[in-house]
Amino acid sequence: MTTLETAPRAGAPESPTTTSKLSIVMFSGTADKFIPLGVLAQAAAAMGSEVNIFVTGFALHGFTKEHHDLPFPTEFAAMAPALAQGMEAHHVPSWDTMLRQAKELGAKVYACSMMSEVMGLTRDDFGDLVDDVVGAATFVQLAEHGETLFI
Amino acid sequence: MTTLETAPRAGAPESPTTTSKLSIVMFSGTADKFIPLGVLAQAAAAMGSEVNIFVTGFALHGFTKEHHDLPFPTEFAAMAPALAQGMEAHHVPSWDTMLRQAKELGAKVYACSMMSEVMGLTRDDFGDLVDDVVGAATFVQLAEHGETLFI
Amino acid sequence: MTTLETAPRAGAPESPTTTSKLSIVMFSGTADKFIPLGVLAQAAAAMGSEVNIFVTGFALHGFTKEHHDLPFPTEFAAMAPALAQGMEAHHVPSWDTMLRQAKELGAKVYACSMMSEVMGLTRDDFGDLVDDVVGAATFVQLAEHGETLFI
Repeated sequence: MTTLETAPRAGAPESPTTTSKLSIVMFSGTADKFIPLGVLAQAAAAMGSEVNIFVTGFALHGFTKEHHDLPFPTEFAAMAPALAQGMEAHHVPSWDTMLRQAKELGAKVYACSMMSEVMGLTRDDFGDLVDDVVGAATFVQLAEHGETLFI
Repeated sequence: MTTLETAPRAGAPESPTTTSKLSIVMFSGTADKFIPLGVLAQAAAAMGSEVNIFVTGFALHGFTKEHHDLPFPTEFAAMAPALAQGMEAHHVPSWDTMLRQAKELGAKVYACSMMSEVMGLTRDDFGDLVDDVVGAATFVQLAEHGETLFI
Repeated sequence: MTTLETAPRAGAPESPTTTSKLSIVMFSGTADKFIPLGVLAQAAAAMGSEVNIFVTGFALHGFTKEHHDLPFPTEFAAMAPALAQGMEAHHVPSWDTMLRQAKELGAKVYACSMMSEVMGLTRDDFGDLVDDVVGAATFVQLAEHGETLFI
């Protein structure tokens, strides 16, 4: 069994008059939340949706060149080893592998300019997953008339 | 005073050309987050919206037959007893009662196939709240052209 | 450099047939999550979007007249001082200042009637940021056919 079903053919959207668009505000900085980021971005991009991701807050640490250990949520810390084992046993790709697949299909990743400044991060501090550093107003405009998730 | 106002009549949506649709990705596994899941699903279903819930991550523990004690968020642990008392005093239904009401009105609950596998859970491990086990791509397609929340 | 780019002129929406609408369910009660609430509400309102905020759960403590110290998430507690310094150094407005700007542009803030009751809060306990106390069904109806975030 593969981890994701075969996605419907891109270019054959449900409605002929509207293309679908998924926007994700990625704010949470705990390791667990990066899995749904990768899965949902990859699934939506594979379906032919426009995908825009706005990284802000603690989540910016997941996108810097300098490796940061993303913390596990306190309440579920005891489950972390079993979860990591399960991911490996079932060959679940890492979140950044899934995000790269999404990006190959057109997904875009933007770092929040305001929080980058606040955290002392510049464009050069981010790895190649980040396409650009933009303000919230730009992202809100990109996200209009689509579905938007706050993770 | 009832806990929810009288919902508008189902079948009389705001716009004649589009039915509304609420999709919820239920990822968080702390006990507090199950309250808005129940409330929002019930409210949307009572208004005649299509409601689809995709359960993944730690939230899967809330839907297994084997009872799991859902942890309370660390930061608010001191408030848990007062909150539980307030819920009881005001006769707030439990989250699963509200979700059952939503399901009677047509809401559907899907468990994430990938995370179920990772956590060693099969279809038989889930209680009757779960309608099916599906992949993220299926859910993303169901959620298209509606509002989607990530809890 | 300003913290937010110049927002596009209000009244010039992307599509002539649909005005955009951003709805936010504000549930999380940790201090960090109030920053994206302020930023996204302000950015969307400045673009001419209708903005509706539904405050519930622990987030209600951020809106009472009696000042509550909002806790910082346990996992990132060590970063709190550096973040506060960065916010000050870059003259980032506080979340409530940004929310006031959004409200001057038409954004509305509603407290959840059910959770207010559960937490023993009445209309008079809330500060002037709160426009009204309403039920979830009312909010779900307001949010229909727009984008909705759960923070």
